Amino acid sequence: MIKAILFDIDNTLFPSNEFAELARRHAISFMIDTGLNVDPDEAYIKLQRIIKKYGPNYPKHFNALLKDFGMNPNPKIVAAGIVAYHQTKTSIFPFPDVPHTLIRLRDDGYLVCAASQGVAIKQWDKLIRLGLHNVLHEVFVTPKKSKKFYKSILKKLNMKPQEVVMVGDNFKTDIKPAREAGITTILVSPKHSKDADYTVKRIGEVPKILEGLK
Amino acid sequence: MIKAILFDIDNTLFPSNEFAELARRHAISFMIDTGLNVDPDEAYIKLQRIIKKYGPNYPKHFNALLKDFGMNPNPKIVAAGIVAYHQTKTSIFPFPDVPHTLIRLRDDGYLVCAASQGVAIKQWDKLIRLGLHNVLHEVFVTPKKSKKFYKSILKKLNMKPQEVVMVGDNFKTDIKPAREAGITTILVSPKHSKDADYTVKRIGEVPKILEGLK
Repeated sequence: MIKAILFDIDNTLFPSNEFAELARRHAISFMIDTGLNVDPDEAYIKLQRIIKKYGPNYPKHFNALLKDFGMNPNPKIVAAGIVAYHQTKTSIFPFPDVPHTLIRLRDDGYLVCAASQGVAIKQWDKLIRLGLHNVLHEVFVTPKKSKKFYKSILKKLNMKPQEVVMVGDNFKTDIKPAREAGITTILVSPKHSKDADYTVKRIGEVPKILEGLK
Repeated sequence: MIKAILFDIDNTLFPSNEFAELARRHAISFMIDTGLNVDPDEAYIKLQRIIKKYGPNYPKHFNALLKDFGMNPNPKIVAAGIVAYHQTKTSIFPFPDVPHTLIRLRDDGYLVCAASQGVAIKQWDKLIRLGLHNVLHEVFVTPKKSKKFYKSILKKLNMKPQEVVMVGDNFKTDIKPAREAGITTILVSPKHSKDADYTVKRIGEVPKILEGLK
């Protein structure tokens, strides 16, 4: 019998990649408006390379972007980028069917948890802004998802693998290691995959799958 | 003849101290709601001490607060503090008469500038959020205000001291060193002071003072 459902956070509970792209594009528009005289698409490609090179938590992406264009650091332009970026990144909201589906699963008696890869404070920050921190029973965050991580969750929940389902969008981090730990997996994806136990297009389809598992 | 008006930013163009206090109090309320079981006023006093000790730009104030209460770092509680703090700190707005007074001074032909102490990107961040970055002709930021800073502004503007007025709330940073550079000073203060050339209660009174200087 299934007792607990684990949900990945980024791109499973909210469109993380879309917000990140929007935030970067807003930042560039705002920087151009305050004096960065460049092509926005060229700037977007350069910024993506900078983020890839220095990692997402580097605090000086916009300084590096100006430097990449051969410009001196300009605090007005950098601040414009920062403000636009943060205004967008802090305005995240969940996929529309996520809040009511999670609340329904609670009502149905399931333990509803997040199982996520990243920095704990940053993942909690997202859950709070998404308004989901009060809906989830437990939140587990690891620097890197592995079979060991899923096994440690089973131990903390004091549950057997057959009692837990993992839901996520990423085969490598959400599906593969969870299956290795014996957990039933649901891949969130527009295309059906035979590598997960189940595939859904939306979180709203999860309760039906759980009905079938009874 | 007066040609340029310099405005301090924090506590002159917007109630910086009040927003900072509100942000800290919101952060503490939110941390208490997510599990920090302490008295809010005691937490506020502790947090002020931590900010004084580590400086305002230290990124781990809330971790230090938990430690001060003998608690282990808890990412949910720390994230709750960060979200509440940033939501408040990024929602700053100017004193009500500031935007229209600055625009009126532009219309009257004055060069309207900010002269501020702090980190350039952070001061620009505030001006953008206040919606004043497009209203100001020039923005000057220094790590520490001194006679030399005001002299350097005169040089950049290519103006004589008699052509410039400085407006600010702080005697030590806005009035004293500007006077030493020969600049006419207007103190923004609820109480009249004989140490500045003029005292106003609100920025909205500045145009009348300038009329009298003609």
